[in-house]
Amino acid sequence: MKFVEKLLEASRKNRSLLCVGLDPDTYLMPEMSILEFNKAIIEATSDVVCAYKPNFAFYEVLGTEGLEALRRTIGFIPDYIPIIGDAKRGDIGNTAKAYARALFHVFGFDAATVNPYMGFDSLDPFIEYENKGVFILCRTSNPGAKDFQDFADAGGRHLYQTVAQKASEWNTHGNIGLVVGATYPRDLVEIRKICPDMPLLIPGIGAQGGDLALAVKAGVDAYGEKAIINVSRQILYASSGKDFAEAARRAACGVRDNINLVLEQLRG
Amino acid sequence: MKFVEKLLEASRKNRSLLCVGLDPDTYLMPEMSILEFNKAIIEATSDVVCAYKPNFAFYEVLGTEGLEALRRTIGFIPDYIPIIGDAKRGDIGNTAKAYARALFHVFGFDAATVNPYMGFDSLDPFIEYENKGVFILCRTSNPGAKDFQDFADAGGRHLYQTVAQKASEWNTHGNIGLVVGATYPRDLVEIRKICPDMPLLIPGIGAQGGDLALAVKAGVDAYGEKAIINVSRQILYASSGKDFAEAARRAACGVRDNINLVLEQLRG
Repeated sequence: MKFVEKLLEASRKNRSLLCVGLDPDTYLMPEMSILEFNKAIIEATSDVVCAYKPNFAFYEVLGTEGLEALRRTIGFIPDYIPIIGDAKRGDIGNTAKAYARALFHVFGFDAATVNPYMGFDSLDPFIEYENKGVFILCRTSNPGAKDFQDFADAGGRHLYQTVAQKASEWNTHGNIGLVVGATYPRDLVEIRKICPDMPLLIPGIGAQGGDLALAVKAGVDAYGEKAIINVSRQILYASSGKDFAEAARRAACGVRDNINLVLEQLRG
Repeated sequence: MKFVEKLLEASRKNRSLLCVGLDPDTYLMPEMSILEFNKAIIEATSDVVCAYKPNFAFYEVLGTEGLEALRRTIGFIPDYIPIIGDAKRGDIGNTAKAYARALFHVFGFDAATVNPYMGFDSLDPFIEYENKGVFILCRTSNPGAKDFQDFADAGGRHLYQTVAQKASEWNTHGNIGLVVGATYPRDLVEIRKICPDMPLLIPGIGAQGGDLALAVKAGVDAYGEKAIINVSRQILYASSGKDFAEAARRAACGVRDNINLVLEQLRG
């Protein structure tokens, strides 16, 4: 099954555009293994999400045991829910091939995030996996996004717009998506115009301050779909006590319902 | 000790600007574990290099065992030789912190490569490790480098030049370097002008077709130092037989000596 079909199925089944970022930070979570923590979070939220997105950094920082925990975490996620490996990889051809294989074969992710700085041949080994999703960083959610992504050509066109345009041209398999931060809602509107059909992975809600309603309105396609609203800390650390899983569920349901309210207004 | 001092010490001791890329590709190497392979390569070459650079992709593709092999490989390298973790990471602030900790603390690299697309706050957690080296991708060695790095502003200034300029401004701790491919020798000349004192990590020689003499002439600083000429496949796979380690040594000595001939011409 193609990634985008899997995404839409999970999204429709759970009536959700919410993606939970599985970023276990040992400084913020209760005292337990990250594997137990992830398992509890997944059990508490798997019927209200459209995807999960573990970020490699939080596993690599724990060494090889962390990566083993990541591998096992994937096994806890119900099969019908797509899993996005957030690794932001990018390297030359033969090396990118190894990364793509690591993400899609070894770990078995349904999709991965990649960095466009090195150009097409660094992305192509990922794109060649036709049934996997490839989310190219376009307009990231952080303040530093402006440093290079705002670089403009003589016509006033920004680098991030060029990335969106190129991604659209390269999308012959229909498996490319873009990462666009909710913290830049006007840019999100523009990017949705350049790529009307692509899935957009939208971080930046919650701890980073992006506005949920604006992100949903600007992020969805013409059918109110294909926006993947990622929230991590606001859900994972809704409570630091023993009730962290229930609190995470409440927070996840809250975000999911707020997204659906915005969608109802859009349709109304 | 600061990274650049360690680099210069190893470089002077071994009279070498050669960095060997420890990229064990199971399709190309003799039948043995990557740990044994790396150990043999290191024993055969450690007195003729200025640094080693393992690329994470070749370890991640083997799963957690691969990363364990990477961790143990680091232990085989003599203490005085700097090790550059080629991971090309880049992520938002709190996540970049975890990556920096993973590379510098957990694995214990002396330096790391990073991707500038997400801007300063994605690089700063690395730069804050004052004694570690941070090599920012600037002009990469692959054909796709042109896709976005050539993006030009109204004044004809390219993105990669802006990255070099910004890197120079951000270099308050003197621990930033740049990655510049030998396959674009004219751009290497320009970048060396923008950043006269920075260490430049230069891939693209050998299998990728970059010209060694041009890269050395354009890459070194005013003292004929601070260019790190990376070669991987041409050395690692000089022979696919039982003599792979001796063949690797011969190849490494050959590149090192050719570099030194160019330096002698420069000085003469």
